Amino acid sequence: MTQDGGMTTSAGIHGRNDPDLTVGDVGEFGLIGRVAPQEHSDRVLVGPGDDCAYVTVASGRMLISTDVLVEGRHFRRDWAEAYDVGRRAAAANLADVMAMGGVATALTVGFAAPADLPARWAEDLTRGIVDEAALVGAEVVGGDVTAADGVVVSITVVGETDREPVLRSGARVGDVVAITGRLGWAGAGLHVLGRGFRSPRVLVEAYRRPEPPYEEGPRGAREGATAMIDVSDGLLADLAHIAEESSVGIDLDADAFVVPEPIADVAAATNADPRTFLLTGGDDHTLAATFPADRGAPEGWSVVGRVVEGEGDVTVDGVAWDGPAGHEHYR
Amino acid sequence: MTQDGGMTTSAGIHGRNDPDLTVGDVGEFGLIGRVAPQEHSDRVLVGPGDDCAYVTVASGRMLISTDVLVEGRHFRRDWAEAYDVGRRAAAANLADVMAMGGVATALTVGFAAPADLPARWAEDLTRGIVDEAALVGAEVVGGDVTAADGVVVSITVVGETDREPVLRSGARVGDVVAITGRLGWAGAGLHVLGRGFRSPRVLVEAYRRPEPPYEEGPRGAREGATAMIDVSDGLLADLAHIAEESSVGIDLDADAFVVPEPIADVAAATNADPRTFLLTGGDDHTLAATFPADRGAPEGWSVVGRVVEGEGDVTVDGVAWDGPAGHEHYR
Repeated sequence: MTQDGGMTTSAGIHGRNDPDLTVGDVGEFGLIGRVAPQEHSDRVLVGPGDDCAYVTVASGRMLISTDVLVEGRHFRRDWAEAYDVGRRAAAANLADVMAMGGVATALTVGFAAPADLPARWAEDLTRGIVDEAALVGAEVVGGDVTAADGVVVSITVVGETDREPVLRSGARVGDVVAITGRLGWAGAGLHVLGRGFRSPRVLVEAYRRPEPPYEEGPRGAREGATAMIDVSDGLLADLAHIAEESSVGIDLDADAFVVPEPIADVAAATNADPRTFLLTGGDDHTLAATFPADRGAPEGWSVVGRVVEGEGDVTVDGVAWDGPAGHEHYR
Repeated sequence: MTQDGGMTTSAGIHGRNDPDLTVGDVGEFGLIGRVAPQEHSDRVLVGPGDDCAYVTVASGRMLISTDVLVEGRHFRRDWAEAYDVGRRAAAANLADVMAMGGVATALTVGFAAPADLPARWAEDLTRGIVDEAALVGAEVVGGDVTAADGVVVSITVVGETDREPVLRSGARVGDVVAITGRLGWAGAGLHVLGRGFRSPRVLVEAYRRPEPPYEEGPRGAREGATAMIDVSDGLLADLAHIAEESSVGIDLDADAFVVPEPIADVAAATNADPRTFLLTGGDDHTLAATFPADRGAPEGWSVVGRVVEGEGDVTVDGVAWDGPAGHEHYR
């Protein structure tokens, strides 16, 4: 099929700002062409509009990852504007490249939606993806649009790294565990939205538009990270992936977590343990990594625990966390 | 998020052949790990299971394309086994790389499905994708699984070419238009299924499991193709993309099309014009290309028309085709 392109040939395409235009009117062609910049970087040799895009991979090796977001599960159209859904969706993918120590270069977007969805919603979503990608210099180079009952956004990101990628399997006993970026903010924002509130606004905004610390991925790799992951499902759940893949345990130091004031406020107002947001809240794309103890964590990172002997278990002050578990799809 | 990996850690995973197991039981982890080969080629440096896969791109340039298949629109679970849906879905993507003159190397799979979908259906689908990819030496290196109301399969394929890719925009007046591979078979098979029949079996099978002429893409490029596309939406519709992007017209020679016997039979039995299947049937991933007249089409290709002066129009014996148009999503 056609990579959704700039050369719109379908009949019935009206002006860009026609509020009655639907995704069905825009059709298979034109969605990305209507939104993505027509000017590409030198890296993009062929952009949207042909059977494939054609993109340079200077290092001769690519990182690649795919994430799927589903309406009603990963986002609600009444909780976030389309533009922010696009930002969030792109952030989730870009953060996967960050967590390998790399930088994203190109994205494709698979988009399924009801034919009567306003074209503006789809365009705003795409614009959000394009803008988030631009933060790291990446471009949307292709995609596919088709009709479905609900909205599904499947983004694939490709990136590169100038050194070996940092895997989940490299943590060694004695390493320090450190994090950088906001932690718990998006989860607290989701908690607030789920209760029908729209404030504290800073948390709701953190949920709607996460800010992964993109530059810290390559920096962590340069600074000797032995294992790295981005926190999408909750710190405990994601650190468990490092612990399992590295065949170690991880013990967190409860006192090392500073509870930000907005999260403390929400916790108090909803009678929740503030640490729950920090330990199990997902979607911030906080970067978590392990570093050799003699080298320690880079400046700006917070050491929150240590790698210990174990078999994939993550503990807090030596004991299993007895609060709610991290998010996992289907559960 | 995790690239769906081989290291299953979710509780509740039972034996591979438990018929009661659902996609929800398998969860985010394990689907591809349960199906994809654990042994990777040298090209795959990191396979499923980390934040990203890591794959070599020897030429330093990659082709990339994404296609989305939606249940009820691109496939019906009662018309094709999951395995064949996987074969078809992968074929559609691999054919996009073929149509640039390249060979696919890696795929990722974004999969959304109801949580109560039998795990075996998802595994069979994945197995079909893996097997179709293996035809060209490509591997499934990652993916994401999530819950949704309907089944949506979004595949991204990456490939390479050892020369400049063949675009849609290179056709020149005077070029011959040629095709290779089955044409009209899948469309006739779909027509038959739509009327509640299961035969002629050869056509139904052609719909369920298309056989794109993968090797002819790179061969067409070597043999001087000036423009190339795979026929997914119908020959007239897809040649129109070449005509539009190349700012030419294309005139087909009706007598150049030989109607295969099974298609002639179906046309007679359903009172249809057999040429409709050849000119507007999609999903075979027939390869269509233009070649300079002095060089002509490679052996094994059929010349079916000529590039003429024009502005994106495709005619048959000099006049517009007045039968049903090719398939386009949302229309």
